[in-house]
Parts: sequence; structure tokens; C-alpha cells
Amino acid sequence: MILKLSCPDRPGLVATLANFIAVSGGNILEMSQFTDPIEKWFFIRIHIDLEDTEEKRQALISTFESLGQSIKAEWEFRESGARTRTAILVTKAAHCLQDLLARTYSGDLPLDIPLILGNREDLAPIAERYGIPFRHIPVPKDGKEAAFADYQSAIDDSGAELIVLARFMQILPADFCDAVHGRAINIHHSFLPAFVGANPYRQAYRRGVKIIGATAHYVTSELDAGPIIDQEVERVEHFHTPEDLMRLGRDCECLALSRAVRYHANDRVIIRGNKTIVFRD
Amino acid sequence: MILKLSCPDRPGLVATLANFIAVSGGNILEMSQFTDPIEKWFFIRIHIDLEDTEEKRQALISTFESLGQSIKAEWEFRESGARTRTAILVTKAAHCLQDLLARTYSGDLPLDIPLILGNREDLAPIAERYGIPFRHIPVPKDGKEAAFADYQSAIDDSGAELIVLARFMQILPADFCDAVHGRAINIHHSFLPAFVGANPYRQAYRRGVKIIGATAHYVTSELDAGPIIDQEVERVEHFHTPEDLMRLGRDCECLALSRAVRYHANDRVIIRGNKTIVFRD
Amino acid sequence: MILKLSCPDRPGLVATLANFIAVSGGNILEMSQFTDPIEKWFFIRIHIDLEDTEEKRQALISTFESLGQSIKAEWEFRESGARTRTAILVTKAAHCLQDLLARTYSGDLPLDIPLILGNREDLAPIAERYGIPFRHIPVPKDGKEAAFADYQSAIDDSGAELIVLARFMQILPADFCDAVHGRAINIHHSFLPAFVGANPYRQAYRRGVKIIGATAHYVTSELDAGPIIDQEVERVEHFHTPEDLMRLGRDCECLALSRAVRYHANDRVIIRGNKTIVFRD
Amino acid sequence: MILKLSCPDRPGLVATLANFIAVSGGNILEMSQFTDPIEKWFFIRIHIDLEDTEEKRQALISTFESLGQSIKAEWEFRESGARTRTAILVTKAAHCLQDLLARTYSGDLPLDIPLILGNREDLAPIAERYGIPFRHIPVPKDGKEAAFADYQSAIDDSGAELIVLARFMQILPADFCDAVHGRAINIHHSFLPAFVGANPYRQAYRRGVKIIGATAHYVTSELDAGPIIDQEVERVEHFHTPEDLMRLGRDCECLALSRAVRYHANDRVIIRGNKTIVFRD
Repeated sequence: MILKLSCPDRPGLVATLANFIAVSGGNILEMSQFTDPIEKWFFIRIHIDLEDTEEKRQALISTFESLGQSIKAEWEFRESGARTRTAILVTKAAHCLQDLLARTYSGDLPLDIPLILGNREDLAPIAERYGIPFRHIPVPKDGKEAAFADYQSAIDDSGAELIVLARFMQILPADFCDAVHGRAINIHHSFLPAFVGANPYRQAYRRGVKIIGATAHYVTSELDAGPIIDQEVERVEHFHTPEDLMRLGRDCECLALSRAVRYHANDRVIIRGNKTIVFRD
Repeated sequence: MILKLSCPDRPGLVATLANFIAVSGGNILEMSQFTDPIEKWFFIRIHIDLEDTEEKRQALISTFESLGQSIKAEWEFRESGARTRTAILVTKAAHCLQDLLARTYSGDLPLDIPLILGNREDLAPIAERYGIPFRHIPVPKDGKEAAFADYQSAIDDSGAELIVLARFMQILPADFCDAVHGRAINIHHSFLPAFVGANPYRQAYRRGVKIIGATAHYVTSELDAGPIIDQEVERVEHFHTPEDLMRLGRDCECLALSRAVRYHANDRVIIRGNKTIVFRD
Repeated sequence: MILKLSCPDRPGLVATLANFIAVSGGNILEMSQFTDPIEKWFFIRIHIDLEDTEEKRQALISTFESLGQSIKAEWEFRESGARTRTAILVTKAAHCLQDLLARTYSGDLPLDIPLILGNREDLAPIAERYGIPFRHIPVPKDGKEAAFADYQSAIDDSGAELIVLARFMQILPADFCDAVHGRAINIHHSFLPAFVGANPYRQAYRRGVKIIGATAHYVTSELDAGPIIDQEVERVEHFHTPEDLMRLGRDCECLALSRAVRYHANDRVIIRGNKTIVFRD
Repeated sequence: MILKLSCPDRPGLVATLANFIAVSGGNILEMSQFTDPIEKWFFIRIHIDLEDTEEKRQALISTFESLGQSIKAEWEFRESGARTRTAILVTKAAHCLQDLLARTYSGDLPLDIPLILGNREDLAPIAERYGIPFRHIPVPKDGKEAAFADYQSAIDDSGAELIVLARFMQILPADFCDAVHGRAINIHHSFLPAFVGANPYRQAYRRGVKIIGATAHYVTSELDAGPIIDQEVERVEHFHTPEDLMRLGRDCECLALSRAVRYHANDRVIIRGNKTIVFRD
């Protein structure tokens, strides 16, 4: 069982939590802890080994309630090793989708993927190749709201806990962003906060940067401004055309996105304001 | 002898230049060439081996004039292995200055450093340690123009061809920038174009980026917007404080700046608009 | 058209080649040149633009013969943009195969893949998914020679110019290595020359290294000792298990192998002894 | 106060330690923990905040004794923020020494350096520049044992807790290695375990690797085989000569060595067999 918790810092928190677990019959397999010295905020992730009965687990979780409240914590218990139900949104660039699917089917990503959604149909054949339902929901300029209501209900129906925007080239409505807060991951094809918005590789080419990158972040209603989970970079030189930047960037995108999804699915990310605590593995 | 040349692209340029060198009794030791396929512009750097007489070299250089003009080129001849006379401007951060001096005295950087200038006196002892004249020219808020006239004449008097801003924390006046165009290198302590301006590490900390960096670029009158020569990056995590980012960033700054200075001093950079062609070694 | 050439260095080579191309009606689109200062050896890759007739191209190629011989060169002409017929050999690890296929079908790798060969059948479904013939040739301990004769003739029949060993877990017989000299690329799952041979990730784990890697190299009869084309590395920490190293290493393997294959297929590699000259793009 | 501890894993260790600290009036500022799932071994580093009286600290330390023994632990208490007395051994390469001194005097490295020792005199002027005693102890071929006895007593007299071999080009006698076990750090100028022994850059050049590196490790009696603390790498290309590799390698050496020294001095390294647990900052 994984416990993720954050709360205002104060003396004795580790002892309190460790005792609670010991008394409940659990053993700590792995503990990662961080105290933000500026915000005075405490973050912890504990991998708890507990006798296998579901009953005992539920008992621990409900007993924890009063402790959690007493330290003004936000917390979450989740079965360790659980697969995360994930919907993937795409447009026409295939590389991130292919990468996520290959990693899922090789076992590197602990995902169940009940649904792939596209505002275009281009990638339906890839979904089909892996036997995953593909739903085409176009986003007309004058029907954006209705379209995103369709996305929302399709995602809800699929039971997805996590939404991955794998080069989904649509700006999301604010209420959609709010509805998926903390559980939607986007890959932006630049080293944010450089080159927000459209055509970042072309922007990078024009600026003459010597390193390009990609950024995986949680979706918020402000464009490309959500909490960053991971980034990846690659050196470029004067002889690289915009097309070369796109090619090199695709590797950055796949690496940053797949790592971010992995950290999230393995309950290794805690969001605090506009930042993430990532207990890497 | 090094020839750096750029001109509009057209068929036969390599043959024309190679023949000219052969006919002049030179031999090509190393040739680096790049044609920008979008701008249709031709760039070349040729390391020419020529019999040792200064006369013969001068003959080649003056004979080249009409060829260069006929292809509408900009070009520059420079003795290979020549040391570059360099003035360094500093404020109070010591690391870039120390790094440049250590590399110069170990032979990694082919520089002669006749002068170090500071708007504060903090680093005078380091200059003294290496036996280099240090001149303190304060920059009062209401006397900036006069101060920079002093900088300019001190630099001119020193015979410096290259000016390195090694964490010189002053915004340069536009006419100073113009006067040193193409021969002044600044290190900005962020991965440009992210975090232009003041306190970039604090900006990076607030944004929660997972990679920080530094950028060495030619000085232009627009702040932090000149042609980039080199960049360096480093991964950071949630547990890094702003002070940690500064510490990790110092390594990025030293590496990016020293490489940029080295490329420039070895005549390996050609500027074209807001970009650089860097024939690395 | 691409010309790759290497020969003993001597004055005037660039001029000679550039003139030959100009006189033949060609234009140099891109030229990359390197002179090994220790071995005194000259290497060049020229992208030549020539009027489109096949006849003219053949004329240039046959005219070049006497020039090439006069400078004791080894050289090769190849149509630029030509796709490289490639056979892929696999065992049961899927990631490199999947990566090569995804990159080929997205256009990043200019390959035609007529055949995938496996000493096990595990990856047949992936081949099938992409509509590529899969041939299962087991390698029994006491029938290795005959098995590799089968591999050889299957490869020959497929017309493959390039053979990629995408985690093919068999030691190749010397005569097979000789037959595919300079056109077979292997990925070794370590940062060579560290951890030659079996189970390199386990070796790396035992040694407690802080960086792991992968190496793409041409196959030679000496195990893991052929000319290196590209390498990739990744930081690891004490908390990474051997399984984590394998997971992180898979990304290194895919990146190093796909780049090496790309350089080879784009005629950007020249082999000289146990080294490669790689004119990167 | 920093507590570093390792012991066989068993349930309840975190609770036991956290309770002990709470009961002793301490507060946990930062806790880093790792359980080796293969060796079943528990490692922890705790930054404890304790009321300032030296008496109280000593009480905690002596009370801990029986707890530590009961869990069969090895442990160490050390004042946090304490500077580490460090002797540096050199030969003639200056870069690592200069780098360590610059970082120490800028405050990045929490060291006191009472002594620099050289088997040659070349770097005496650098020591002098920083006002640090330099002692020249030659190592004659037929007087190695006596020479290292002199090194040992000079180090002992200086009160150094840590010994840094900053490109000290001598193979150390086994008994010297034993005497400094766990507190002597060497920088090897290759990416170990590749290129053990002499002239690693020349070995790397001959092998044609595309990435070079450096390795900081604890000294043991087996050459270049001690527990690795950190490594650093840099890409190289065919055009880099052995001298270029040395130049690029120097940056790797300085970075890996200074980080390793920093981790050690900040009590962030636990040695276990031939490996290190490094709780990075």
C-alpha cells in the first residue's frame, strides 16, 4: 500500500506516522520524505507492507482519518502495484502514442488503457493494432464546448483515472481543465517556460538555441503553465533545420512524457501549488 | 592561417576557394562548411597551411580581396594559434572569473588578459593573485553614461579584441553594445530564452523547472537576446533550494562561458543575424 | 548523390575533388571533411546535386574511377535519399525492434525492411502487426554453423544491404561476421568497453556504477569489439535495482541503435580500422 | 546533527529511530532512507535538530549506543555544518586542485585544507597562492615504502579526516590504502570500469569511444576498483585528438571529484561493501 501525504511541518511527524503504521501491523518497505524549508511544508511517501486482508487495509485507512485531520494533512492511500486506468488524447503525431503503448505492453508502464480519443482520425489504425477502442471526437471551431463535453463524458464512461495528452493539439476549456485537475498530463514540445504556445520548434530555430527540450506537466487552465513533472533536453547545432529539431525533439517528448506518466502511475508525485515533489525511482 | 567566410550560396564556391588556396601555395589542413538551406547562405572555415613568410601571407590576403568581393562575401583572415587579447568585466561573483583564469593559465584558453574591470572591488584580490591589472570603475545610477565611457576607453587602451562579461551585473548602454558588436560575450545564468532579466534562478525555482541552465551569447543592445554561442544544463529536483540552483548553475555558467570564449578565440564562430554558426572542436 | 571517400592525406585534395564535381556539372550541397592529424588520413562526404539524368550520374561515377585510384582512395557513390534495405535479427527483447519499426513507419529512419529473423518466435506477432515477413531460425547448440548458413542465405535472398542485430542474443560465427563486414550493426547493452559479454546490467549493478549506457557498433569477429558508431548513457543511483537498470538501459539502447542505423543509412559513417568517422546530422 | 546508520533490515526500524529522536528532544529536519531489497539492508541519514547544548548532544549520542547495538547497526554522528579537515595529494596536473580550492574558498565545499602534498613540486605555487602549506615528498622507485610512511605521518599530523587524491599519479601501497579506508577519495580519468590503469584517455582514443568520462571513488588496495561515489561523462567525436579528450576530460574530472568530496563532507555517503549509498543534495 502506498501512502502519499503532505501537511504543515512540525516536530515529530515521522515518528507519529511510523508509529501509526507499526501499531497497525504494517511495515515500512520504503520511505521518501522531504521538508520544504521555505514553505515549511512536509511531504512523505511510504510504501507499507501490510498483511494481505482487504479488511485490515480498510481498517488502517479509516483509522488514519483522525490522525490525518489532526495534522491538517492531505493524503491518499493506494494499493501498490495497481494499474492506472488511462485515457490517451491524440491528434495526428504518432510518436508519443506509440511510445506509451509499447511501454505499456512491455510492462514498463503500469497502465490499463481503455480508450484513445482523437480530434482527428489519423491514429485510429495504431489504436486498432493494439486492440484499444478509438473514438473520434472532432473539435469544430464553433462547437468547442459541446465537443469537450463529449470528451469529458467519454473519459468518465471509460473509468479513466489518468488522462494523457499525447500531442493533443487543442487548447482545453477552463472547466475541462478544472474537472481533470491533478490527473491530466500534457507533453509540451519545448523546454518550458521557453517557447510557450504554438510551433515551439520553429520558435527555437528562430532564436538559435543550442539545446532544445520537452516538458511534461499537469494540465491547468493557464496554457503550458501547470506543475512540471519532468523535462528532457538535447543538444542541437547550427546545421539542424526546424525538421531536425522536430525529429530530435520527438525523443525528448517520449522520454519526458513516459517518465512523468510512470511517476504518476506509481504514486510518486505530490502536487503542491505550481510545483511537484517527485520521489523518483 | 584561418579563413572564416560567409556569402550568398551559389554553385562552385568550394571549388573556387579551394583553387584559390592551392594556386596561392596553401594547403587545406581542415575545412568546415555549412550551407543554410533556408536562407541559402554559405559559411566556411578553412585552416590554411602556408609557407611561413609573412610576405606570402599578406600577398594571399590582399589577392583574396577581389575574389571575396566578387562573391559578395564577408570574410576574415587570422593567424592560427594567435592568442586573443581579452578584457574581463566582473562584479562580485568569482566563479566565472576564476574559471577563465585557471583555464587560461593551464593553456586551455588561448587568451592574453591585459585587464580586469569591476564595478565593485570585490574581485581585485583574484586579479592580483594572477598578476593582472584590476581597474575599479563604479557605475553610479546617475552617471552610467560617463562610467561606460570610462569602460570603453579602458578597454580600448588595453588593446582588447574580446570583452567577456563574467557575471557583470550591469545593463549595458546601447552605444556600448554597438561599439563591441560581435566581440563581447556575456554569460546569462539561465537557459535562455527562459528567465530573461534579474534573478533567473529564483524565477526558475518559482516555476518549478526540473532542469536549469546557462547561456553564453554575444552582447546586443536588446537584453539577453543576442546570438547564442553555447548553453549548458543540469537536472534539478524538488529538494533543491534557490541556493542549490545557484550552486549547480555556477557549473553550467563556467562550462558554457569557457566553451563560448574558446570557440570565439579559436575563430570557430561566425555570426549571422541573431544566430551563430559554431564549428566545434 | 552522396560521395564518401577516404585516402592518404596530401595537399590539394579538396580542390581536386571540388573541381572534378564542378567540371562534371555537379554542385556541392553539403561537404563534411576531416583529416586525421595522427594517421594523416583524409575523409570526406560530399552531397552532390547533379542534373537528374541517370546517364549523367553514371558518367560521373565511371569518370571518377581514375581520379579515385590516382589518390589511392576508397570511395562509394550512393543516391541521396535512397532507402536502405534492412534485415533485423531479434531474440525476445522487443524494445529495439519496436523502436526501429515505429521510426521507420513515421519516416525518421529511411529503411525498407523486407525481413525480420528470430532465433526464437516471441516477436513474430510484432512483425505481423507491421506486415513484415518473420522467419524463425533456431540456433541449436550443436547446429550453429548450419543455422547461420540459413541466416546468411535468408538475408541474401531478402536483398538486405544492412543487417541490424536488435538484441539478438547469439554470438556470431567468425565467417558470418566477415561476410557482413561493415554492414551489420549490433547494440550492446553497456557502455563499452565496460562490461563486455553476458548480463552487462548485472555486471554494472555489482560494480556499483553511477552511470549506465549502451553502445551501437559494427559487428566484427571479436565479441563487442567492433567500431563504435554511437553511445548513450543515463545516470543511476543506489536505489536502482538490476531490473531498473535494464529499464533505464532500454532507452539508451533504442536511442544509440536508432541513431547509428540512421547515420549508416544516410551514408554518414566511414569506417577506418577500428574507428568510425560519423558526420552527424 | 547528522546520523548515518546502516543495519540488517527488519520491521519497525524507522519508528524505532524516529521515536528515539523524539524522546531525546530532537526534531527530524530531513530524513533519507533506503532499503536494499536484494541484500535486505537498511540505510538511513537523519538530519536532527537538537537544542544547542553540547551536553544534550553528547547525552543523545551515548544513549544511542545500546539501541544501535541492539539492531546490529554501524552508525556515525557528526555535527551538521562541520567543516571537514582535508589533505590534498597532487602530482603535476593542476585542474582538480585549482577547482577544489576555488570551490572551498567560494564556500561551495565545506573543507578546511591544512596541507597539500606533492610527489613533485610543480603545484607548490598554487598552494602558496592560497596560503596553504605545501609539502614535497618524492616517491623514489626504490623507496616507496618509506615515502608513503612520510605521507601517512604528514597526513596524521595535519589532523586531516579526509584525503583527496587530485590526480596524484602514484599507485598506493596496500597498507596505506587500508589505513585511509573510507576516507580517501581518488579521481580516475576514465569512465570506470572502462580503461583501468595508465593513460585512460589514450586508451579511449584507441578504442574509438563516443563518450568519455571520469570516476570519483574511494581508495582501496585494488587499483581503480573501490566504491564509486560519482561519475561524469562528455560526448566526443572522431575529430577529437587525445589532447582534446584530455581537455574535455578535465571538466569531467573536476565535476565528479568535487561532487564526491561534497557528498562525503556533507555526510551524504554510506559505504557498503564495494558500493556507495549517496543521498544527494
